[in-house]
Amino acid sequence: MVGQTGRVAAEIPPVAPSLSAAVENTLAAELSARRAELLAVDERLGVVADLLVDFIADGKRLRPEFCWWGWRAGGGRADPADCAPVVRIAAALELIQACALVHDDLIDRSETRRGRPSVHVAVAKSHADAGYAGDSDQHGLAVAVLLGDLALAWADDLFTASAHQLRALDRVQQPWRAMRTEVLAGQLLDVSMGAMATDEPGALAAAMTVNRFKTAAYTVERPLHLGAGLAGAQTEVIDRLRRYGVAIGTAFQLRDDLLGVFGDPTVTGKPAGGDLTEGKRTVLVAQARTGLAGTTALLADLDAGFGSADAGAVAAATAAIAASGAPEELEQRISALVADGLDALAGLPDDAATALHGLAVRATARRR
Amino acid sequence: MVGQTGRVAAEIPPVAPSLSAAVENTLAAELSARRAELLAVDERLGVVADLLVDFIADGKRLRPEFCWWGWRAGGGRADPADCAPVVRIAAALELIQACALVHDDLIDRSETRRGRPSVHVAVAKSHADAGYAGDSDQHGLAVAVLLGDLALAWADDLFTASAHQLRALDRVQQPWRAMRTEVLAGQLLDVSMGAMATDEPGALAAAMTVNRFKTAAYTVERPLHLGAGLAGAQTEVIDRLRRYGVAIGTAFQLRDDLLGVFGDPTVTGKPAGGDLTEGKRTVLVAQARTGLAGTTALLADLDAGFGSADAGAVAAATAAIAASGAPEELEQRISALVADGLDALAGLPDDAATALHGLAVRATARRR
Repeated sequence: MVGQTGRVAAEIPPVAPSLSAAVENTLAAELSARRAELLAVDERLGVVADLLVDFIADGKRLRPEFCWWGWRAGGGRADPADCAPVVRIAAALELIQACALVHDDLIDRSETRRGRPSVHVAVAKSHADAGYAGDSDQHGLAVAVLLGDLALAWADDLFTASAHQLRALDRVQQPWRAMRTEVLAGQLLDVSMGAMATDEPGALAAAMTVNRFKTAAYTVERPLHLGAGLAGAQTEVIDRLRRYGVAIGTAFQLRDDLLGVFGDPTVTGKPAGGDLTEGKRTVLVAQARTGLAGTTALLADLDAGFGSADAGAVAAATAAIAASGAPEELEQRISALVADGLDALAGLPDDAATALHGLAVRATARRR
Repeated sequence: MVGQTGRVAAEIPPVAPSLSAAVENTLAAELSARRAELLAVDERLGVVADLLVDFIADGKRLRPEFCWWGWRAGGGRADPADCAPVVRIAAALELIQACALVHDDLIDRSETRRGRPSVHVAVAKSHADAGYAGDSDQHGLAVAVLLGDLALAWADDLFTASAHQLRALDRVQQPWRAMRTEVLAGQLLDVSMGAMATDEPGALAAAMTVNRFKTAAYTVERPLHLGAGLAGAQTEVIDRLRRYGVAIGTAFQLRDDLLGVFGDPTVTGKPAGGDLTEGKRTVLVAQARTGLAGTTALLADLDAGFGSADAGAVAAATAAIAASGAPEELEQRISALVADGLDALAGLPDDAATALHGLAVRATARRR
């Protein structure tokens, strides 16, 4: 059992190596079966299925890992013969994530994803290169919308079949429903706030709500909840896991906010101040704006660099945020959240608690 | 029992009037509960929920009607106390349809839907009118993508909960899975063919495949299959309903093709030759192209009017199609399909057979 903070990432062994292979095998089998269904409609659809296979191959499998440890914490066995359903639901989480990212890239007009062209961009380029009829960008949009829809529908199919097979629908239907509504609600709120003035009253609270639902619930809390529910965990165990999930998921996003402005480009692989250039409505920026209230010159620097592609303006905005007290405020909040999250692990089975401790450190003390 | 053709639409009584009210009540209750979930995340999301409520209010409820008659044909009782699950699954079909239409309008860049601005257009306009930050069109796109995703996720939630409650998942999971993959595959093929040259080999076969999956399976065959499966129908009944569904659904789309070019604008409410202006890759156009092979001048007229906004060019293309023999070919095919569909009704319970006969006539002999 673990409860103390202070372990460093380097000490954490890679967790659940066998899970990883099982999830890959399940995704491969599922996508292969679904590819065959598309080919049965028309052989031209093979390329569409391949797009999804390639996209999913690049995932980090973070949500499956939390789902797995929810299962183990809830008393689920590691024996491969017993854990096929949890592996299938973990794989379904990767299909949901594929929909979320493909649609998100369209919404954010992101040109790249994990160092490759995003789906709508890749499809538009193929269309243009082939000299096909019609507008290439619109074709990219169409395929990305439909491919995301397919991934979402297939995720539901995989989830429902697996939970039903295990006679666990009554236990996991609620977190599955909640997770999908929460992430979409978080995205809708994010999009709505992006349309508001940056000094909109309540912007800080809204940014925190986006973190809570778009990141914490979706990435940590609900995957743990699903795994634990599947295992038939006691309510107290589920409550502890969810408390850990909200705390660590929120801290994870706050770390992301800090790295998005102050991260070392040679480590993150992203440009300095990238979140500022993209005009992301993060808690960090909202907090800085609060901290700078009354400091007209620095607030003007922040505004000038927010959404700007000019390196000098972005650097000045970065300096304004640094001077606002917001980074220290976020570091304190991260520490408090990590402490609370680790505290919630008390009483859970040793291997799950150790793994979740390690994941918490990896998620919140990372440099990229 | 009915099996003969030749009844006219005017003789057909409105079917299942009580179903209609039950579906409306279920949709209202479901959307109200889901609206409350969005408001619990942030009160700003109320407007998003309202968008979906308004959009769904305008639906024609065609798929619920087929689902209902599948249920009745399969032995399901009309007693309100017994039919709550089929009504809920019928309502779920309307949520799927909301996703399909909202995303379709985005893909097709449609400005209007049922005489109102389409969702992405309405949201973009509100954004622009309010003077909000950022690109209004991109904001409209973002909300439309996410709203469609919500409708798709909520459809699955409603379906799964209802089927599970009735202990019917084993009977209806397969048609539910198939329906969603089929409609998305049909849409993807439609989009793919739109990028191909109009004289692409296999264009006629591909247009027929699009009809089969995007329209027939999704609109008629699978809703019937779901209703019948839910009622625990015999395999033979399901086979008959599916045969009817494929035939009538395909004929329905062929009638749509004819109305889209030859429909009377004063009756259809749509511009003459609308499908030509929009460059739709219909079976009618592909068939006309086949019929005109070797008739260089008429083929040139068809090509010139296809995708054109010029009324003269569209009229010339319409004349070329009329001269191609394709309309007669489609009328013959519709007659044969309707005969086959009605033939499949033999042996089904009287009220369901009568209702499905009426729906077949309404769907295939309509003038708008």
